[in-house]
Amino acid sequence: MVATSAATRPRTRHFGIGEAEYARRLQSVRRRLDERGLDAIVLFYSPRIMYLSGFTHVSTERPMALVVAAREALGVLVPALEQEHVRKSPVITHVKAYPEYPSGGTKHPMLHLADLLGEMDLRGRRIGVDRDGYADVNGYVGPTVSQVTGVAVSEAPDVVDGLRQVKSESELDLIRESAVWGNLAHRLLQDGMAVGRTEIETTLMATAEASRMMLKTLGRAYQSHGRGIRNVPVSASFIAGSNTALPHGLRSERGLMPGDAIITGASANVGGYHSELERTMVVGEPTPEFRRYFEHMLQIQDAALAAFRPGRTCAEVEADVVRAFVELGVQQHQRHHTGHGIGVEGHEQPFVDLGDDTVVEPGMVFSVEPGVYVVGVAGFRHSDTIIITPDGCELVTFYPRDLDSLVVPV
Amino acid sequence: MVATSAATRPRTRHFGIGEAEYARRLQSVRRRLDERGLDAIVLFYSPRIMYLSGFTHVSTERPMALVVAAREALGVLVPALEQEHVRKSPVITHVKAYPEYPSGGTKHPMLHLADLLGEMDLRGRRIGVDRDGYADVNGYVGPTVSQVTGVAVSEAPDVVDGLRQVKSESELDLIRESAVWGNLAHRLLQDGMAVGRTEIETTLMATAEASRMMLKTLGRAYQSHGRGIRNVPVSASFIAGSNTALPHGLRSERGLMPGDAIITGASANVGGYHSELERTMVVGEPTPEFRRYFEHMLQIQDAALAAFRPGRTCAEVEADVVRAFVELGVQQHQRHHTGHGIGVEGHEQPFVDLGDDTVVEPGMVFSVEPGVYVVGVAGFRHSDTIIITPDGCELVTFYPRDLDSLVVPV
Repeated sequence: MVATSAATRPRTRHFGIGEAEYARRLQSVRRRLDERGLDAIVLFYSPRIMYLSGFTHVSTERPMALVVAAREALGVLVPALEQEHVRKSPVITHVKAYPEYPSGGTKHPMLHLADLLGEMDLRGRRIGVDRDGYADVNGYVGPTVSQVTGVAVSEAPDVVDGLRQVKSESELDLIRESAVWGNLAHRLLQDGMAVGRTEIETTLMATAEASRMMLKTLGRAYQSHGRGIRNVPVSASFIAGSNTALPHGLRSERGLMPGDAIITGASANVGGYHSELERTMVVGEPTPEFRRYFEHMLQIQDAALAAFRPGRTCAEVEADVVRAFVELGVQQHQRHHTGHGIGVEGHEQPFVDLGDDTVVEPGMVFSVEPGVYVVGVAGFRHSDTIIITPDGCELVTFYPRDLDSLVVPV
Repeated sequence: MVATSAATRPRTRHFGIGEAEYARRLQSVRRRLDERGLDAIVLFYSPRIMYLSGFTHVSTERPMALVVAAREALGVLVPALEQEHVRKSPVITHVKAYPEYPSGGTKHPMLHLADLLGEMDLRGRRIGVDRDGYADVNGYVGPTVSQVTGVAVSEAPDVVDGLRQVKSESELDLIRESAVWGNLAHRLLQDGMAVGRTEIETTLMATAEASRMMLKTLGRAYQSHGRGIRNVPVSASFIAGSNTALPHGLRSERGLMPGDAIITGASANVGGYHSELERTMVVGEPTPEFRRYFEHMLQIQDAALAAFRPGRTCAEVEADVVRAFVELGVQQHQRHHTGHGIGVEGHEQPFVDLGDDTVVEPGMVFSVEPGVYVVGVAGFRHSDTIIITPDGCELVTFYPRDLDSLVVPV
């Protein structure tokens, strides 16, 4: 028998971010605070809080904030109902729980935040914030951080968002794993499509079955940190018919009909990370017109995939894609840019847009989804997720892209 | 045969808000703008936009705004990808579509908003906003409305939120209908619970089946305006085990075990309106301790239901509930106030809180959900939805509340 100490014990597979990586992220934020001459930053936006602390919560009218001091201290403002949840964390040095929003009859939560800053020795210091005040959500109203501290604060969300743009190996692994489960959900979605069946029915059956299989497969190594119907482990959905011509079209709630165009979407949440897979499909034999626009969309997506490599800017990549639209004579059918960053959020910086001069770097992750929208006909959009590599990109999503593979039999 | 003109044709059942009511809402907002001496209000928050225009959209890094002028004009700022969607509306007089966020290579969306205000003859006028700047979401950054107009604006979200607190008969009907479908989803959820089965599996199967039956029943009279897995027609979910002791606990992803406490939640979206139904349950024979806390919770909820009537303030209602906690000796297990408004949003103003002096009025709708959280044991919370009547309240949710009805057989 071999004795195993804690040091030599093999690490159990765990689909999440490890303690060491959270420590590195905090260290990076502190370095960036130093560079800006800031003594601390107050963060209200839940994806930033999760990125730095692993703490997931439901954003409501009850404000929550993470306070990262440049000199070691880490504070958190929470409503009383979240306090047990937060006090478990070994890295948080200061917890301030307020009774309730609006106030529980005592004082406004933002005044408790001012107290927390005082207890962390940050009164009168140079404070950054992601936004000067908590979000306008669920009827919340309250003063800004400047107002409760009496000191002007500077908005510096990029102290965190800049870090999030280039992913670590652990983050990339979670995104790759997300794409695997998105692929299953999408397959079950396609298998479940039939004439007469509604979008929501097929959507929910595929989502339920793929989530069930994902949990059975990953077992205890997986935690969705979910609640309610939001943040299911994996989901796949679609809209059909003329609504596809709207990039963010809504469901029609009527059953599929022969000739319907379909635009799908699938993603999985693995350790808080996401991928994006979308396909254009059709019910029954596609018309020549449908085939033509579909092929144009594929060619433009190919041009986009070929345009990503380190050193180019997002704007340069987008300019290549715009050129492909023009060369095919479909520029009047473009409604949005090529894609966006993806990771903790489904959409995040940088954006593949003529107005974004961010330089593409290895480890960045993007959706690649140029769309051709023909009002009166249909929308045509595939979305794939890529990771930037030293010499181009890795396609993370791997669902078939050709039209023959995407026809729902009638 | 009887000839029917448009005027005499019976109105087809339609689960939504009619044109006349949207017109009345706009009229009320305009009256409130006049009272404040405001020439217009710029709204960024999607539930407010939906409340006034019926326009639903997905909030992302691409800002959207509704501009309500006191003198008739109604403007909207949208990304190009939403423009076809908005141009259908007969009530919108000015549409400004910007190419893309960050900018599509031209100018920032907020500068297009300044142009829109100019075209609506609002340059230099007294402008209200719900928040001075678009939300901090998905990596959006940009200037405030004050910055792009060069004029200080005043934050006045209550111009809309104040109206939303008292519901019309149409709104109340939609909320009652929501409760009916929430009841079905909750029944299917309870029927699907079994030892060994995970939370998410039962959640998704109940949600899928209830949504399918709701769509089959309501047919074309129903539109969910949904997309993806968010905003399903109806859903029911639960968390189990020790996580129930946290008011916003997360799923454990392990199967149900004998002795587990359960807290459920169900709601349906009917015409954009919601209800809330939550139950505390238990797997197998409850312990005497479980029974005791459950009975305390029921007594406190009864006290809460008896405390609502027009003329009292939310703070007075909450004070009664706090007294019930104290009389039962469980005040140390209270973690949050009694409830919140509900309607277009799952949580909205007013709040049943010691710090909210709003006077309760007929037509207001509240969740009633005082919770008893015993760390190491479980959480105990039922949530029911009520409508305030001239002499008390109407219980809209109607799922059994007694413990015997809420035991999962082992």
